[in-house]
Amino acid sequence: MRFLQLFALISLLTLLSAFTPQDRNRLGPMGQPQASPTPTPTPLPPPTVKMDAYRTAAARIIGAALTSDRAYSRLAHLTDHIGNRLSGSSNLEHAIEWALSEMKRDGLDNVRGEKVMVPHWVRGEEGLEMLTPVSRKLTMLGLGNSIGTPAEGITGEAVVVRSFSELEQLGERVRGKIVVYNAPFVDYGTTVLYRLQGASRAARYGAVAALVRSITPVSLQTPHTGAMQYDEAQPKIPVAAITIEAAELLQRMYDRGDRPTVRLKMEAKFLPDAESANVIAELKGTEKPDEVVLISGHYDSWDVGQGAHDDGGSCIVVWEAATLLKELGLRPRRTIRVVLWTNEENGLRGGNGYRDAHRAELAKHVFAIESDSGIYKPEGFGLAATAPPQVRANLQEIAKLLSGIGSDRIAASGGGADIGPMMREGVIGASLDVEGSHYFDIHHTPADTLDKISPQDLKLCVATIAVMAYTVADLPGSLTGD
Amino acid sequence: MRFLQLFALISLLTLLSAFTPQDRNRLGPMGQPQASPTPTPTPLPPPTVKMDAYRTAAARIIGAALTSDRAYSRLAHLTDHIGNRLSGSSNLEHAIEWALSEMKRDGLDNVRGEKVMVPHWVRGEEGLEMLTPVSRKLTMLGLGNSIGTPAEGITGEAVVVRSFSELEQLGERVRGKIVVYNAPFVDYGTTVLYRLQGASRAARYGAVAALVRSITPVSLQTPHTGAMQYDEAQPKIPVAAITIEAAELLQRMYDRGDRPTVRLKMEAKFLPDAESANVIAELKGTEKPDEVVLISGHYDSWDVGQGAHDDGGSCIVVWEAATLLKELGLRPRRTIRVVLWTNEENGLRGGNGYRDAHRAELAKHVFAIESDSGIYKPEGFGLAATAPPQVRANLQEIAKLLSGIGSDRIAASGGGADIGPMMREGVIGASLDVEGSHYFDIHHTPADTLDKISPQDLKLCVATIAVMAYTVADLPGSLTGD
Repeated sequence: MRFLQLFALISLLTLLSAFTPQDRNRLGPMGQPQASPTPTPTPLPPPTVKMDAYRTAAARIIGAALTSDRAYSRLAHLTDHIGNRLSGSSNLEHAIEWALSEMKRDGLDNVRGEKVMVPHWVRGEEGLEMLTPVSRKLTMLGLGNSIGTPAEGITGEAVVVRSFSELEQLGERVRGKIVVYNAPFVDYGTTVLYRLQGASRAARYGAVAALVRSITPVSLQTPHTGAMQYDEAQPKIPVAAITIEAAELLQRMYDRGDRPTVRLKMEAKFLPDAESANVIAELKGTEKPDEVVLISGHYDSWDVGQGAHDDGGSCIVVWEAATLLKELGLRPRRTIRVVLWTNEENGLRGGNGYRDAHRAELAKHVFAIESDSGIYKPEGFGLAATAPPQVRANLQEIAKLLSGIGSDRIAASGGGADIGPMMREGVIGASLDVEGSHYFDIHHTPADTLDKISPQDLKLCVATIAVMAYTVADLPGSLTGD
Repeated sequence: MRFLQLFALISLLTLLSAFTPQDRNRLGPMGQPQASPTPTPTPLPPPTVKMDAYRTAAARIIGAALTSDRAYSRLAHLTDHIGNRLSGSSNLEHAIEWALSEMKRDGLDNVRGEKVMVPHWVRGEEGLEMLTPVSRKLTMLGLGNSIGTPAEGITGEAVVVRSFSELEQLGERVRGKIVVYNAPFVDYGTTVLYRLQGASRAARYGAVAALVRSITPVSLQTPHTGAMQYDEAQPKIPVAAITIEAAELLQRMYDRGDRPTVRLKMEAKFLPDAESANVIAELKGTEKPDEVVLISGHYDSWDVGQGAHDDGGSCIVVWEAATLLKELGLRPRRTIRVVLWTNEENGLRGGNGYRDAHRAELAKHVFAIESDSGIYKPEGFGLAATAPPQVRANLQEIAKLLSGIGSDRIAASGGGADIGPMMREGVIGASLDVEGSHYFDIHHTPADTLDKISPQDLKLCVATIAVMAYTVADLPGSLTGD
């Protein structure tokens, strides 16, 4: 009996470890869910790297990261003084200038902005009102990339569906109406489809506008913005996020036969593309400077809140990792390249532009890390499911250096939106994985602010990225074991 | 060793039961904390009531309450179709008319509105902006009863304190400035003092306005309004609630020496007192109709959200309890009187007016219950600490009828704002106690909406109130054992 219980427990744990929340929420560029993660191949080959050689360096890095307040001070400047940073905004360009200037003061190498033209979507004034059966203002945020409404707004009867399949059943009956998607949060990758595709799928049946329940498990009348995408085959209609509270109110009224009508007003529009830049700084390698270990986050954010967790914190973390190594005199054999991506949120021009501009040297990118899941307690890295078993074995060995701070897990899959383009060209990529239970509470909201970031978690993320990047960049042999 | 461990555990549990979260958050009228609860006197005398005689009635009541959807439907009408209900608003008067009309249709006895004049405070347009070191809109809600600002607003340097004692240390250095109270939530009774007294205590030192961190443990940029009180000995200055996020932002800037300046604009003002009413309906007693068991909630709310948890849900619960008893043919010996109080939030005119109008019959009020802690899973009742031991023993005995739904606790103290005036005249009072861990997340916010109320919890609250009220009202002898 005891043996059976133990066996059942082990089976359960194995199952759970194969489907972590990170896996369920793993995303491709623009938030599309990726294919299910491939389980870690077992058994892995023995590691070819010698972790013991890096204990001293890891100790110095972790000690320094956990005792420095600089990363938090810089994140406070970025969030409190510069603020949120949508592509095309002056805030983003100020943030870029500030980082370039500070990175030079830090003495990092080859500090530069690499020009990228970015979409320049602006929200303008916007609002949503229920007109009947009662008059009430509803909290909303227009979705990024949406078109606006005429100045007088779009008024229509709200037809509320809980799923695309309910929409399909209604079909042409939504013509001339405003479709409200009230899909409860399952996981980000699943539920975000309503934000991405909701407008065009409703427009297909003649809807004149769409409203999407915010992609979040919780709400205190909290609207979540984020990118939407038009299907070019359908008419373009405006689309906005509403709060869980508003979606449930409309659902109740619709279910009771109240036939609620609402008026949506949005000034949203695109201005001409704007000039922006990926911010790049390096710690030049001593022996193989043309080989690159890339560490990155995205510098742009939505135009609400402070873009603290998403993704200003990650930018400060990867930058601090490089500066800390430089201060410690830990210059590795290969080059560590910090990249703060522009335009992840509504275009991915930074990630695509980098791939294009650096195509010739992509084969020399030995490893690329992206942090874009918020700054919470780091748990390790999510390694691309396609990574060779020898690389996985070696990274698992290196990650043991992080066991003392609990960030030594190499999960079965991972990657990132901005490093996606280069990964599709063969670069081995990974995400920084963090404890993610509250990320989607504040994601793309006015509540993504510095107070939500624990200074300790920020330090732990710096330590985790710095130890991993330094060790991989300094290996005498190759990560692939060749 | 085992014995000692057990002894320690029992001691700990005893200690915990004496200081429940309900006790820590127990409030007097207008939110002032009351004196610490007196522990239950032990041992209590044996009960004089015979609980077994009420098992059949309790079974019918619980069964009916748990299978009826009427309370939820009515709460949906109140919240979705009528909406929030500030004293003086047309919404509140519509709600009163609707309840009177429906209560008559239910066949309740002596349905009437008892006129009370109420304060008529209106919010008007309002807003808060940071001007330096950066320009940023800050989320706020003016506090109820506050005066407004001049049309151009009040602009001043923000001086941020974490406590009254930090304010006292600054003293006259806040003259001409705007005091920001950034006091973290300890418990409602403790922290609400900043909302109630913050303006006058800052005005004493010459501050020109005050901002108060919202009284809540959590925030997604969520402002919480609520009543403030002026000390007539000090100049009146306007005061508003800000979010935790805004308070922490101002704190960081103040600590860094950024000398943030803000501009507060509020149109808030009092209009002449308005006519309102306590809504009253009865189930007339068969043998002692002049003896009253009173069950109540307050019908007014703040002017944001829907006033669902605070306190529309309670009003529907006490009303439904009476209607359910009538339908079941359970007419007790004494009269059960339902009261939906007006103006609890910013004046307590309903509770005071009732005491004055019914002073002659207060001695015949054998028991008064108020529900005003939100509609969550009921846990029992908080009985006034001053209640005679025999009453406590009898209520504990009666509460055993509720053990099957888990609401059989008689806590060491309790009461309520609206029944406070009659309790001070000697009426024995109690609160409905509910699981309170999330009440202050949404209290006085735009997020106090119907979606936060579990239909099951609503049913359980109806059952709990109805069983208790019926049994006390039907006792052959007196509750006091005389």
